[in-house]
Amino acid sequence: MASESGKLWGGRFVGAVDPIMEKFNSSITYDQHLWEVDVQGSKAYSRGLQKAGILTKTEMDQILQGLDKVAEEWAQGTFKLSPNDEDIHTANERRLKELIGETAGKLHTGRSRNDQVVTDLRLWMRQNCSTLSALLRELIRTMVDRAEAERDILFPGYTHLQRAQPIRWSHWILSHAVALTRDSERLLEVQKRINVLPLGSGAIAGNPLGVDRELLRAELNFGAITLNSMDATSERDFVAEFLFWASLCMTHLSRMAEDLILYGTKEFNLVQLSDAYSTGSSLMPQKKNPDSLELIRSKAGRVFGRCAGLLMTLKGLPSTYNKDLQEDKEAVFEVSNTMSAVIQVATGVISTLQIHHENMARALSPDMLATDLAYYLVRKGMPFRQAHEASGKAVFMAETKGVALNQLSLQELQTISPLFSGDVSHVWDYGHSVEQYAALGGTARSSVDWQIGQVRALLGAQQA
Amino acid sequence: MASESGKLWGGRFVGAVDPIMEKFNSSITYDQHLWEVDVQGSKAYSRGLQKAGILTKTEMDQILQGLDKVAEEWAQGTFKLSPNDEDIHTANERRLKELIGETAGKLHTGRSRNDQVVTDLRLWMRQNCSTLSALLRELIRTMVDRAEAERDILFPGYTHLQRAQPIRWSHWILSHAVALTRDSERLLEVQKRINVLPLGSGAIAGNPLGVDRELLRAELNFGAITLNSMDATSERDFVAEFLFWASLCMTHLSRMAEDLILYGTKEFNLVQLSDAYSTGSSLMPQKKNPDSLELIRSKAGRVFGRCAGLLMTLKGLPSTYNKDLQEDKEAVFEVSNTMSAVIQVATGVISTLQIHHENMARALSPDMLATDLAYYLVRKGMPFRQAHEASGKAVFMAETKGVALNQLSLQELQTISPLFSGDVSHVWDYGHSVEQYAALGGTARSSVDWQIGQVRALLGAQQA
Amino acid sequence: MASESGKLWGGRFVGAVDPIMEKFNSSITYDQHLWEVDVQGSKAYSRGLQKAGILTKTEMDQILQGLDKVAEEWAQGTFKLSPNDEDIHTANERRLKELIGETAGKLHTGRSRNDQVVTDLRLWMRQNCSTLSALLRELIRTMVDRAEAERDILFPGYTHLQRAQPIRWSHWILSHAVALTRDSERLLEVQKRINVLPLGSGAIAGNPLGVDRELLRAELNFGAITLNSMDATSERDFVAEFLFWASLCMTHLSRMAEDLILYGTKEFNLVQLSDAYSTGSSLMPQKKNPDSLELIRSKAGRVFGRCAGLLMTLKGLPSTYNKDLQEDKEAVFEVSNTMSAVIQVATGVISTLQIHHENMARALSPDMLATDLAYYLVRKGMPFRQAHEASGKAVFMAETKGVALNQLSLQELQTISPLFSGDVSHVWDYGHSVEQYAALGGTARSSVDWQIGQVRALLGAQQA
Amino acid sequence: MASESGKLWGGRFVGAVDPIMEKFNSSITYDQHLWEVDVQGSKAYSRGLQKAGILTKTEMDQILQGLDKVAEEWAQGTFKLSPNDEDIHTANERRLKELIGETAGKLHTGRSRNDQVVTDLRLWMRQNCSTLSALLRELIRTMVDRAEAERDILFPGYTHLQRAQPIRWSHWILSHAVALTRDSERLLEVQKRINVLPLGSGAIAGNPLGVDRELLRAELNFGAITLNSMDATSERDFVAEFLFWASLCMTHLSRMAEDLILYGTKEFNLVQLSDAYSTGSSLMPQKKNPDSLELIRSKAGRVFGRCAGLLMTLKGLPSTYNKDLQEDKEAVFEVSNTMSAVIQVATGVISTLQIHHENMARALSPDMLATDLAYYLVRKGMPFRQAHEASGKAVFMAETKGVALNQLSLQELQTISPLFSGDVSHVWDYGHSVEQYAALGGTARSSVDWQIGQVRALLGAQQA
Repeated sequence: MASESGKLWGGRFVGAVDPIMEKFNSSITYDQHLWEVDVQGSKAYSRGLQKAGILTKTEMDQILQGLDKVAEEWAQGTFKLSPNDEDIHTANERRLKELIGETAGKLHTGRSRNDQVVTDLRLWMRQNCSTLSALLRELIRTMVDRAEAERDILFPGYTHLQRAQPIRWSHWILSHAVALTRDSERLLEVQKRINVLPLGSGAIAGNPLGVDRELLRAELNFGAITLNSMDATSERDFVAEFLFWASLCMTHLSRMAEDLILYGTKEFNLVQLSDAYSTGSSLMPQKKNPDSLELIRSKAGRVFGRCAGLLMTLKGLPSTYNKDLQEDKEAVFEVSNTMSAVIQVATGVISTLQIHHENMARALSPDMLATDLAYYLVRKGMPFRQAHEASGKAVFMAETKGVALNQLSLQELQTISPLFSGDVSHVWDYGHSVEQYAALGGTARSSVDWQIGQVRALLGAQQA
Repeated sequence: MASESGKLWGGRFVGAVDPIMEKFNSSITYDQHLWEVDVQGSKAYSRGLQKAGILTKTEMDQILQGLDKVAEEWAQGTFKLSPNDEDIHTANERRLKELIGETAGKLHTGRSRNDQVVTDLRLWMRQNCSTLSALLRELIRTMVDRAEAERDILFPGYTHLQRAQPIRWSHWILSHAVALTRDSERLLEVQKRINVLPLGSGAIAGNPLGVDRELLRAELNFGAITLNSMDATSERDFVAEFLFWASLCMTHLSRMAEDLILYGTKEFNLVQLSDAYSTGSSLMPQKKNPDSLELIRSKAGRVFGRCAGLLMTLKGLPSTYNKDLQEDKEAVFEVSNTMSAVIQVATGVISTLQIHHENMARALSPDMLATDLAYYLVRKGMPFRQAHEASGKAVFMAETKGVALNQLSLQELQTISPLFSGDVSHVWDYGHSVEQYAALGGTARSSVDWQIGQVRALLGAQQA
Repeated sequence: MASESGKLWGGRFVGAVDPIMEKFNSSITYDQHLWEVDVQGSKAYSRGLQKAGILTKTEMDQILQGLDKVAEEWAQGTFKLSPNDEDIHTANERRLKELIGETAGKLHTGRSRNDQVVTDLRLWMRQNCSTLSALLRELIRTMVDRAEAERDILFPGYTHLQRAQPIRWSHWILSHAVALTRDSERLLEVQKRINVLPLGSGAIAGNPLGVDRELLRAELNFGAITLNSMDATSERDFVAEFLFWASLCMTHLSRMAEDLILYGTKEFNLVQLSDAYSTGSSLMPQKKNPDSLELIRSKAGRVFGRCAGLLMTLKGLPSTYNKDLQEDKEAVFEVSNTMSAVIQVATGVISTLQIHHENMARALSPDMLATDLAYYLVRKGMPFRQAHEASGKAVFMAETKGVALNQLSLQELQTISPLFSGDVSHVWDYGHSVEQYAALGGTARSSVDWQIGQVRALLGAQQA
Repeated sequence: MASESGKLWGGRFVGAVDPIMEKFNSSITYDQHLWEVDVQGSKAYSRGLQKAGILTKTEMDQILQGLDKVAEEWAQGTFKLSPNDEDIHTANERRLKELIGETAGKLHTGRSRNDQVVTDLRLWMRQNCSTLSALLRELIRTMVDRAEAERDILFPGYTHLQRAQPIRWSHWILSHAVALTRDSERLLEVQKRINVLPLGSGAIAGNPLGVDRELLRAELNFGAITLNSMDATSERDFVAEFLFWASLCMTHLSRMAEDLILYGTKEFNLVQLSDAYSTGSSLMPQKKNPDSLELIRSKAGRVFGRCAGLLMTLKGLPSTYNKDLQEDKEAVFEVSNTMSAVIQVATGVISTLQIHHENMARALSPDMLATDLAYYLVRKGMPFRQAHEASGKAVFMAETKGVALNQLSLQELQTISPLFSGDVSHVWDYGHSVEQYAALGGTARSSVDWQIGQVRALLGAQQA
């Protein structure tokens, strides 16, 4: 196959080899992260080949020992890449051959880089997702512990960023923790679909040597085997799912970060970030900026960008393996690293955050009890729509008179509705207010305790 | 609360009301799709209010009958929207009040549009996803039936769009069917997370009337209740998950469409789309265009765009309900409709597609057996890497001589390796070739049968 | 061409026609928005045909009058769609034939729907972008007018949402106005690329009748003609550019909306939205929610989603027209409508917004002058890095003593640096502070005036 | 400001410093690419400070020489990062201080990292975009040269991937070249908006030292200065525009790559990729895969993902600088590198691609002249709609009889229309067919020549 790569028209010079193309095509700069799982996969495959009669026991042992040596070199940082090592698979097999000779040439029998690379990637992701799962549960656990400890602190609940109703601070913490439990649950589902063995699918048609894929599965401890060799070598659902999992998890963390950035402003002044998670200004000496939270918020974009990129790459791609799929790995590596850092920083932020109790208390105001005032009337028999209107009139009357809502006299309230009587004074107690919300999921103490129990039970079940 | 909306600076005139803002804010043009589930939710809630002692039995019955009447008007197309009906919730309650009077004003007690709308949306999506699940299984079933019937047809398997190895046509069909089973599995998981009741969460703090959420759950047949009222009213994970589910499913269908568009070109000429799924040209009389497949391919973009849009809207949003969340419904409605049409059209395409048997056979060529030629040598004891090289030499020799690979004489082959002997002729049988790929997931008949069995078992389990 | 669309395998029944496919394929529900430009395009084309000798003068006149009648029916709402009108082009030509007979069949000579539809879309977008341009300039003008009027109001400038330095309120307004001037500039560039005539490109190869494209250009008032017929019928750069223009403009408006939502909270309390742009709560009588701003913020997601969707649809598409391109129009219509509403609502919001002068003044605090304190030392000769450190020490000293930064006595300051002397008292004047920032682009009054002049000049130039 | 970073609740241990947070916050690993422009910016700024009287001439010279030394160390690879160098700005100033002492501490007077970093990034991108512009024009020029040389080769034009009409091969090349000229034009517009100086904006309020921004502009050779300091330090429009420019350019290249992948299949067999841009299979000896083209196609996803990520990060961000903006640089660096490689590889591909003339000729078939047959009748006076139908009948008749369209006898044709006469034979000449398309933009030779002239003129103008 002689080269016809001579320059025909214009353009820059091109010989038999274009160095820019070589670099463009090569993946070794990033796929070397797979060295360990590549060796694992090859070890399992050599056992499969031995059972299939392609390797003798002696050859297999030679290969296994050679692969262990390759792994040792990587682990010790002594593995030397050669200029022709375009990917980790080539590099490892080249080195194996140097170590054990021609027998190395039997290892790839019936295997293709198409099934090899996706086996490697699944092994890597399985390990990594397991770590992320544990980190995420640790974050949730930290939040729940804190929610339990600070259950008696009240502060304003906001909707539309307007003060809405008094709630427990723990109720806020749990609102984010509960969102993260869904991420934790979803990650387990993704892990289940990652944990499926494609090895033994060859390039497209399958494996022609009667390799026992069940043995390969057991060797590599996968939960199942892929059903169709064409699909197995070219589907990247598990990558797309992982990237989307990360994207959705990041939107949750971005929302929590946004809340804390707001609560940490001079204006809200409800919380204070630890110095370990703040940064000073190069120009303004008085400032402490919530860089950790801003970075968490921003990473939602980066992570989602990777998800969007992969889906666009997959769109309309013809069946089976195309080189386009090489885009999968950098996305996985970058997003995995980002998620690991983000979750750990978030855990640090939550576990060291200071809250300003007095400011939280001070931020509660009687107008946040207007809904409760309406319920007061409801309990006296007034239809809610009328009660809502009556309470609205009271709010307006207080505004007009320039007093707080709870400063209206009983007589004034009675001009709005004769149903008001002396017991209306009970409405103005914030502690009493939150305890009304005792239906499951509400901000009453019993419900908060219930939530803590529920989340802990979920974490326990997920860990198992 | 007097209006201060007079014009202050420049700009267009603004009175107490800006008609463009009214329209901008209103959702009735699209959320009226929720009329039925809104009535369902309200009926359940009125039962909850009765048990909580807010409604008498008589009042509840009045409301239930009134709501039935509202539903009847919608069903019969006689419901009349009033200009102030900004959303379906307002419209239904307004009408209820016209029908039954002031008692209607009790229905919203302890409820907020925040928990109402998300309950409605979950009910709607539960129903709709159930329909999509059934349609998707029907598509997969059609594919599997066809795969079973056409098991003995061989054609070229492609990688990188280059002819790679002979495979069964059914193996191709199954490669796409297997991908869709993962979509089907994922949809069930999304459905599980849709099927959780938020009603009873109020605006933010929960429900203060002791409404029994377990009763509401049972009435509306949800699988579980939400854990935290702040999260319940503002999380849209189930929407994001649904949109991503659809996006990933569409990438699968876009890839299948791409394959079929290619296979249907004059050049490949392997399949022919039914006229029902083709369109003529306004300019070129001889043309029949695969519009159905192109539309399927293109919708991957539209659907993913909705997913991207929602995630961007969610990014960095402060806790709890913000009006931004109103973006969820149009995305859900559009994507649901698109998925329904796409899946049904795909089913029609697959069930009516004609295949050109002779062309499929003719498209197989001996060079596609080069890998098998290497395996021949492997079976004679040569390490695969050498065998691969030897086979490559044979390919080059054949190209140089201008003959097909299987036209090389034994003598010629033996100049490459002495391991070649008379039995090499068996290599040149396509039927024999595919039968080698008998490891699970391969293209041998036994494996194809196994795949069919596996997919049918999955479908059965999913349906249950 | 007999139909072979009978049901072959499983699936739902399919006859010669699949009604779901018909609906899936049809675009008339939305492309009827193009009725007017479709008629315009056809009128110009019939003039071209006449010049090319395909139509006689009489035939042309017949067609022109017929087309005018068609347009009149659309304008008056009397145009009746027939079930076979799959798109606006078919509908208009069908109606023309009913009105003038067989001569109508000459109109499409040498034209294809491929060049027809993209001509229509460009005409529509040209008109629409012109309107959006004017609306956007009106918004900017309103902002600049307001900035000029409120030039003397100071309030805190924030970075990282932490109070940073005193700035003019007008400086904040202008920061957003200046961003929008870039959008305005970019839109003009997009308009330039929209304003190019594709008509006369046929389906792919061009026009074979010697139609004078320069005449068509002049008739339709385009700025240029497309260069290559294959590109002309299948490129949608101008659509992608428009969608991205809208996306970037929306990120600007989302940031302005975010600021105003924050400034309008009880905690910041710097501005108050007009009632016309706020909404009450269905549950909480005391609340007024900034729905207009939240909707603006949220639409950034929707608009970008359309941009993402189109790019994904375009990715990897084979050359020339494919039905996938039909996705362009709904995206354009939806985004155009959204932008029109968003810009007008934003104009209304800005022109009616109330600001709380006293709160703005009250929100300034001496620690925001810490940078100025450092500059004080710099002006006395201390290197900035040391001055920054010295100022930081003063901030810390004030915090420790529990006093405001400007309450530190001269003696106390002198323990930090001997360079402090009596004139340090001038530092504590906010008005004096902002006037220092007189370099172009800063917050001094002269610079704000300069900015106003610059933006007005830009608007003037863009309008011309 | 003592640290309160002790562990409060659960979570991992956190001392005064969290090493994961340090790493998360640091940007030096990637922003060191900015070393050269950072030095440039600082040199210009020190001249500004001297003119403003903050630096003496001697101090300025000291700083300038020190900065030159810093740059020299970077250029020679001897610059040593210290563990506290969190970003390139800190690193360079730290080193400057080591080299010249306390005077270094004056350099940052009135400057903030907020205006410094964005100045650096603009300088870097200006240089880089200039390189990309030149590479892109080189690609276009190569295409145009090739188009000119191969003007007389005809092959099938496809729409919907179905053979449509005969076109010149050069017409296809030019269709892609013309698309790229729009990218080239757009890049110039982006460059214009990159080329604006933000230095002198400080952190938010501007520069308080009377620094002459016009001098800074001239020193750094910017085209204009930013108008508003708040906007200048926090807008990243030029980054978003660049990322979108790259995304749209990549969709063009992905479409060209898709075409070439198809044309290079065994089935189309119209072109052959040079070996330098192909790769072999690890399993199948006979295969040569178009890896270069697949990688080009796939990068469209990656590049767009970065654009999507940035826009999501920007959405809803509060005014002015937030740490979220740190996401800009990695996106720019990655996309710049990708574009550089993609454009150069595309140039190599085009300049070395072989075309199969005979196959191109052979792929033309008489049915592709059906449109011309209709035009034949049109020229005889038949309205196009009838002619289209008549030509369709001829196609159907030929199909039914199993002959090529041009094999129908005159008598047979006359059963369809009496307008057919002997001169119909001229229709069956492909060379004659293409020459009909002589309207500007068509595939006739004169029009192709016109296109070549137009594109060359554009390139010339853009280069100037």
